[in-house]
Amino acid sequence: MIMGNTALGFESSNDGVKTMPLPTEDIASAIERLMVSCKEEPFFDHGDPRPIPSQESIVEAIQQAKHLIFPGHVAQTGSDPASLEHFLRHEAKGLFENLSEQIALAIRHGGLTPNRDILRCSQLGYEIARRFIGALPELRAVLVTDVRAALEGDPAAKSYDEVIFSYPGLLAITVYRMAHKLHGMDVPLLPRMMTEYAHSLTGIDIHPGARIGQSFFIDHGTGVVVGETTEIGERVRIYQGVTLGALSIPRDDVERFRDKKRHPTIEDDVIIYANATILGGEAVIGARSIIGGNVWITESVPPDTKVLLKKPELVYIGNGAG
Amino acid sequence: MIMGNTALGFESSNDGVKTMPLPTEDIASAIERLMVSCKEEPFFDHGDPRPIPSQESIVEAIQQAKHLIFPGHVAQTGSDPASLEHFLRHEAKGLFENLSEQIALAIRHGGLTPNRDILRCSQLGYEIARRFIGALPELRAVLVTDVRAALEGDPAAKSYDEVIFSYPGLLAITVYRMAHKLHGMDVPLLPRMMTEYAHSLTGIDIHPGARIGQSFFIDHGTGVVVGETTEIGERVRIYQGVTLGALSIPRDDVERFRDKKRHPTIEDDVIIYANATILGGEAVIGARSIIGGNVWITESVPPDTKVLLKKPELVYIGNGAG
Amino acid sequence: MIMGNTALGFESSNDGVKTMPLPTEDIASAIERLMVSCKEEPFFDHGDPRPIPSQESIVEAIQQAKHLIFPGHVAQTGSDPASLEHFLRHEAKGLFENLSEQIALAIRHGGLTPNRDILRCSQLGYEIARRFIGALPELRAVLVTDVRAALEGDPAAKSYDEVIFSYPGLLAITVYRMAHKLHGMDVPLLPRMMTEYAHSLTGIDIHPGARIGQSFFIDHGTGVVVGETTEIGERVRIYQGVTLGALSIPRDDVERFRDKKRHPTIEDDVIIYANATILGGEAVIGARSIIGGNVWITESVPPDTKVLLKKPELVYIGNGAG
Repeated sequence: MIMGNTALGFESSNDGVKTMPLPTEDIASAIERLMVSCKEEPFFDHGDPRPIPSQESIVEAIQQAKHLIFPGHVAQTGSDPASLEHFLRHEAKGLFENLSEQIALAIRHGGLTPNRDILRCSQLGYEIARRFIGALPELRAVLVTDVRAALEGDPAAKSYDEVIFSYPGLLAITVYRMAHKLHGMDVPLLPRMMTEYAHSLTGIDIHPGARIGQSFFIDHGTGVVVGETTEIGERVRIYQGVTLGALSIPRDDVERFRDKKRHPTIEDDVIIYANATILGGEAVIGARSIIGGNVWITESVPPDTKVLLKKPELVYIGNGAG
Repeated sequence: MIMGNTALGFESSNDGVKTMPLPTEDIASAIERLMVSCKEEPFFDHGDPRPIPSQESIVEAIQQAKHLIFPGHVAQTGSDPASLEHFLRHEAKGLFENLSEQIALAIRHGGLTPNRDILRCSQLGYEIARRFIGALPELRAVLVTDVRAALEGDPAAKSYDEVIFSYPGLLAITVYRMAHKLHGMDVPLLPRMMTEYAHSLTGIDIHPGARIGQSFFIDHGTGVVVGETTEIGERVRIYQGVTLGALSIPRDDVERFRDKKRHPTIEDDVIIYANATILGGEAVIGARSIIGGNVWITESVPPDTKVLLKKPELVYIGNGAG
Repeated sequence: MIMGNTALGFESSNDGVKTMPLPTEDIASAIERLMVSCKEEPFFDHGDPRPIPSQESIVEAIQQAKHLIFPGHVAQTGSDPASLEHFLRHEAKGLFENLSEQIALAIRHGGLTPNRDILRCSQLGYEIARRFIGALPELRAVLVTDVRAALEGDPAAKSYDEVIFSYPGLLAITVYRMAHKLHGMDVPLLPRMMTEYAHSLTGIDIHPGARIGQSFFIDHGTGVVVGETTEIGERVRIYQGVTLGALSIPRDDVERFRDKKRHPTIEDDVIIYANATILGGEAVIGARSIIGGNVWITESVPPDTKVLLKKPELVYIGNGAG
């Protein structure tokens, strides 16, 4: 008998085989030990009655904001101006209610300040959500430049539709731009939860704190890392596996580096090819420069410069050796 | 008060705290500006009543096609021949209806030709879906060779079941082979939406236009990129992070490269180890050759050749320096 | 007319356009050929009435186990000790029922031994699920060290909450630790299905057979591969794109390498930076050593050693050349 996870419970049986009862003692013992551990490690239990931000609601907020920004590409029915306006109003209302609640929860739950005033959290959630809605047209204006940059930068791109429907780089940038806006209004937890959602879908890991100019294009994208204090100019193009990261930090010195500029600056019109690594807060890649694939640098590059790996020495064995 | 996203709406309150009304003016202003932008950028609104392809329906079509190709591995109940046939009929009918509709929508929506005749789109959807169903047995025959290749290529693989249930490489190849079939019948949008779905699940980015022979095996796979005009022979094996990509394209010359052969050719029985990069439409990797990990090449390699990085010079500091 | 996937079936029409019937002959022919193929390739059909493990149930089991391990971070309502206990009991019961069934199914379905005794499978499922529940407190204790390691290792980490809510490395490690426990009790299929679920969400591919000490931290993580026979000590920190893999295996010699130690050993307190590759069962990275970004090694490194790439020679063209 394979035991069914039935409405009648685990012990039900319909074939006469002796049923096996729940191992209640083992379960009780495990729970007792888990609860002791929750008490001992107060940071890990949240044993007080504070609700927490919901991953599902945050994903929904991202969808709602996308509906508002690219209405024609997400609605399953077409729309004349009147029904478009109706659709936008509906989505805006839903986004506002959802986001104001999640922001309030995130502020209350913001880790180090657990006992914030509840009403104040709600007021902050209300105010920040209101400003976020007001910023949607400017978010759309920037994202339109990103869509254009993808179509112009990739010979395989066939149409704006294809970019909006299926380019992971555009998804990651869209979510990053939303999260960056909330990050700029000091919302805890939510911005990173949003960008990690995009990271899980695309393999592109952009910290919400990074600052990125318009017409940004990421091709393929898997493995891209853009660190917290990175600054990127306009019309920059990067490929899969590019890391804009921090130099190594001594094990006992992590605290000294919090909130410092640890990641590079990329000026306007730079192109960075696949799997290149640029590290450190001092590195500035000058405007219009091109960084070749697999290059690994920790220093600045002047404007209008091409940096390539010296042709690596390869060893040929067999036919190719001759 | 944490405001509930209740059926009674945002302004409801059950605790006597003064409720905060919706910021209707801010919302109205944001919507007005969004609608102006939609009008100004006609490519970004789809403000006419054309429904669009649905990501959910496309994912469902992939599942339905998988059910037909690997029936024993997806059905949650076992099956004798009669119920297997019943199951296949049910899935085939569902797939046909779903796919013919999505193809019709994709053709209508295909970007550059917005006003196509509706009936003609439906007829094309019908015809292409019919041919896709007819091609399922041949897709299964090829995928069986891919499953075998995984079991034979990976010492950690324990059984066919494990490969089919859990190998991301097999998932990516399965979806690619479906998408390639539709791409070959000139369906717009859908093929790329399908492969990007697989990309988001696996980190493996295979363009539907690539041509790939049987018994193809991708191990681990995260970060793999196979470009649009790549050609891959039979019994080829590649590992995580391998890029089969295009050489850099000058910023102002993208148009000239559309529809050109820009990606490499990999002949039969080649193995390409992790994070190797092969670039350009002129590069041909000859049969039975082996490309080592991290190798970066833009030129052809003769058959029966092993190409390795010259042992990189490492710097040892500390104990290892002695 | 766009044909609706309606309850009335494909042939329904409400606009007078001549409807297109299902292509029943094409469907019947495809099914006939699929069924012939299922018969010819017995490993690929499972045409006997054995139910199979369910991906959905396994994902649910992971969620249930997470609820038990980090109760405060997943419950959408806060909790006093009494309701916490109630919540844990509910989750433990659900996890036990779910997991014991999936284990039984996996054992029955375990590939090479199809005709196992059904009752014996159920008994094994019961016993292993019981021991898994009993091991949850020890899993929590180890995972608490992993959360601490993330906060201590990453200057961008703001709070324990942020790590638990949003760090993909922690998710991958959590699922790996659960899967490794089941792998150690010889459960087939399930452990790999669990880690591939985490792989699909995070780009981090840890084989359930690997052995990993406490306080393990993976930053960013996309592209990380940790092979089946890898051993990792305590307080180890690795970054995105790190491969702990096997040396290449001759095409005709895969069988000889099954169940051999093929992957490296990493001792306590080692740090391995982004995109480094360490290959082979003979490679031992000594305690407290640091492996630099992009390093590629197949040999052992003594303790307390720093290994860096010799500064790669770069070619500067343009301004930077002067």
